[in-house]
Amino acid sequence: MSDIITAAITEALDLAHQGLYRTSPNPRVGCVIADAAGVVIGRGSTGPAGGAHAEIMALRNAAAGGHSVRGATAYVTLEPCSHHGRTGPCCDALVAAGIAKVVASLTDPNPLVAGQGFARLRAAGVAVQVGPGAQAARELNVGFFSRMLRHRPWVRMKLAASLDGVTALADGSSQWITGPAARADGHAWRARACALLTGIGTVLADDPRLDVRALHTERQPALVLLDSALRVPLDACIFAADRAVHLYAAAENDAKRRALEQRGATLAVLPDSQGRVDLAAMLHDLARRQVNELHVEAGQQLNGALLRQGLVDELLVYLAPKLIGPGLGMAQLAPLAALSQAQALDFHGLERVGEDVRILARWRDREPFWG
Amino acid sequence: MSDIITAAITEALDLAHQGLYRTSPNPRVGCVIADAAGVVIGRGSTGPAGGAHAEIMALRNAAAGGHSVRGATAYVTLEPCSHHGRTGPCCDALVAAGIAKVVASLTDPNPLVAGQGFARLRAAGVAVQVGPGAQAARELNVGFFSRMLRHRPWVRMKLAASLDGVTALADGSSQWITGPAARADGHAWRARACALLTGIGTVLADDPRLDVRALHTERQPALVLLDSALRVPLDACIFAADRAVHLYAAAENDAKRRALEQRGATLAVLPDSQGRVDLAAMLHDLARRQVNELHVEAGQQLNGALLRQGLVDELLVYLAPKLIGPGLGMAQLAPLAALSQAQALDFHGLERVGEDVRILARWRDREPFWG
Repeated sequence: MSDIITAAITEALDLAHQGLYRTSPNPRVGCVIADAAGVVIGRGSTGPAGGAHAEIMALRNAAAGGHSVRGATAYVTLEPCSHHGRTGPCCDALVAAGIAKVVASLTDPNPLVAGQGFARLRAAGVAVQVGPGAQAARELNVGFFSRMLRHRPWVRMKLAASLDGVTALADGSSQWITGPAARADGHAWRARACALLTGIGTVLADDPRLDVRALHTERQPALVLLDSALRVPLDACIFAADRAVHLYAAAENDAKRRALEQRGATLAVLPDSQGRVDLAAMLHDLARRQVNELHVEAGQQLNGALLRQGLVDELLVYLAPKLIGPGLGMAQLAPLAALSQAQALDFHGLERVGEDVRILARWRDREPFWG
Repeated sequence: MSDIITAAITEALDLAHQGLYRTSPNPRVGCVIADAAGVVIGRGSTGPAGGAHAEIMALRNAAAGGHSVRGATAYVTLEPCSHHGRTGPCCDALVAAGIAKVVASLTDPNPLVAGQGFARLRAAGVAVQVGPGAQAARELNVGFFSRMLRHRPWVRMKLAASLDGVTALADGSSQWITGPAARADGHAWRARACALLTGIGTVLADDPRLDVRALHTERQPALVLLDSALRVPLDACIFAADRAVHLYAAAENDAKRRALEQRGATLAVLPDSQGRVDLAAMLHDLARRQVNELHVEAGQQLNGALLRQGLVDELLVYLAPKLIGPGLGMAQLAPLAALSQAQALDFHGLERVGEDVRILARWRDREPFWG
C-alpha cells in the first residue's frame, strides 16, 4: 500500500471515528478527497441519520475550500451507497463531481448496496480499489455488519467487578465498585451503542436511569428492558430520559401495554417454549429496529441467560483494584463438569482506566460473521 | 542527575537484576566502575550467598581487563558493606583499590551496615553520593528491605483465575486455568522467592511438587508448609525436590516430628490462641530463616487467613480469558457490610502473558515500611 493511500485512509478512519456517537443506525464512515499529489482537498464524516453521508460532506468541504475535485481520488472507509435512502446515492454524486478513482476500505454489507456501488462507479469509468483499512473500518462498524449479515445486533456485555470477580455484595449493592474514570468510560461505551439492554431485576433493585450523562451526545441510545411478567413500575427512572424505550415480555397484558404505550414505550411479547422471553427472537427484533450495537448492563440472571445461549459477542469488563469476598458474580452460569468446557475467550483489549483496568474479550472459536 | 550517572546506574541495575534467581538471602546488587570520562571499566553482580559481592566482582572485572581503577567512580545499587560477613567488607576493597567516588542508590537497611559503609568510605576520603536509582533498587530488593526493616518477608500471593474470578471448579480441579506462558511466568516468580508457602489442603488435594521447573535456577526456593495438625504424608511430592522444607504446625507430635526431621524437614510449633498456626509468628520465624520474598501458592482457606490478617503485601494474579461460572474463589474472606469496606489495592503492574493477563496489585493505604 502506497504512503499516500495509507495516509489518506488513516485520515478517513479518523473522520469515521468522529461519527461514533452520531451516525446510528447508519455506519460510521469517513471520506478524504485528495488530488494526484496526495494533497487532501476535502474531508467528510457521516452525519446523524437523515443527514449527508461522508462522501457528500467531503465533496461539499472541497467545494467550500474552492477546490476542484475533477480527476481527484476519494478515499472512503465503506463502499459509497448506490441506493436512494434518506439521501441520494453517493456514487452518483462522486461521478458527477468528476472523481477519477475511489479507494474504499470495505464493501457495504447492506444488501441494498453490496457491491452495486462499486459496479456503478466502474460503469461510469471511475477506477475502484477495495481493501485498505478494512479491519479498522469493520471494527468501527461491527454492529452494523452484525445487523446486516446476522440480523442481530453486536451484543456487548458490560461488567464491573472487583479483582476477585465480585459485581455486588450479597444484598445486591454495587455502587460503586469501579472508580469515576471507569464509570465515565462506561458512559462512552453506552453512547456508541444504538440501545442499552437491562433486566427487570436491575430496574426493581436499583431503578437506574441508564442513559448517557458523563459525556455530550447528540442522541441517547434506546433503552431495552427485558421484563417477562411486565413488573416495571410506570414511574421507573428508565422512562425519564428522552429516548425510545422497548419492552420485551413473555405474556400479554393489555392494561399494562396501554399504560406503557401512553408513556411512549413499545412492547413486544416474545415467549419461548418455557414461557420466558425468547432472547434470540428479541435480538432479531432489535435488529429489525435498526439496533447495531446492543450494550448490556444487567444482573447475574440476564447476563447468565444471554451467555448460556451464546448470544454475547463481547465482554467489556472493568476490574477494580479491590477484594470484596462473598457477593454476587458476573453471571449465573451452569456448573462445568471439567475445566476444558469453560467458554474460551480472547483478550483483545487491555487498558488502564483511572485506577481500574478495562478488558475487552471475545469468544475464541466463534466464526466471524463477516465471512 | 547527569547523563553519566544515569547511564552507569541503569547498567548497575541491569547487573543487579542478573542476580534475581541467585543471591538469596543476600540482596541483588550491581556495580559498575567508570573512569572520569564515564567509560565503564568494570562490571559486577552479586553472586550466590557466600560468594563475592557486586563491588568485588566489578573490581576483579576491571583488573581482568587490565584497567586501573585509581581515581575511578563506583556506581552501586546498594551501600557497600562495612561488616565482615561471609566475605570481607566491600568498603575496604574499594578504598584499597583507589576508588575516588561512590555513587550508591540506597543505604543498606541491614543494621550491620545502615550508613556505616558510607561513613567508612568518607572517612577514607572517598566522595559519596546516595540516591540515583533508589526506587528501582529498592523494588528489586523489596523482600530484603522487608526482612531487615519489618522482620518478616515480603509476602506475594499468586492467584490464577478465570476472568470471572474462579480459581477451581467446585470439586477443586484447577489444572489448568491459565495457559503455558502464564504457568512458565509463574515459575519465574517462584524462582526469585526465597521460599514458597502452601497449605496442607493443597498438598492433600493436588500433591504438587511446588518447585521451579520451567526455567533454570541455581537454587530451589525453600518450601514452607502450613500444616496445623501435621497431616502431611511422608511420601508427599513436596519432599521430592532438593531444597529446605519447613513445616509449621499448631501442636506438637513427637513421632511425626522425628519422621519429618529424618526427611530433612524442620518443624516449628507456633499455635495461636485459637489453636491454629500463628501466621504472624510464622512470618517472623521465616524472616529469622532469612526469607526475603515469600511466594504463596495456596488454596482459598490459607489465602483467606493471610488476607484477613493483613499479612499479604502483593497479589500476583493471572487472569485467563475464560468464563467458568460456579466454582471456588480466590480467598475465603469475611462478608462486607458495605462496599466501602473492601480491601483497596492499586494495580501496579498490568501485562499480557501469552493468552492471559498478569496483574500485580498492592494495598493502597499501607504505610511503606522503608520509611
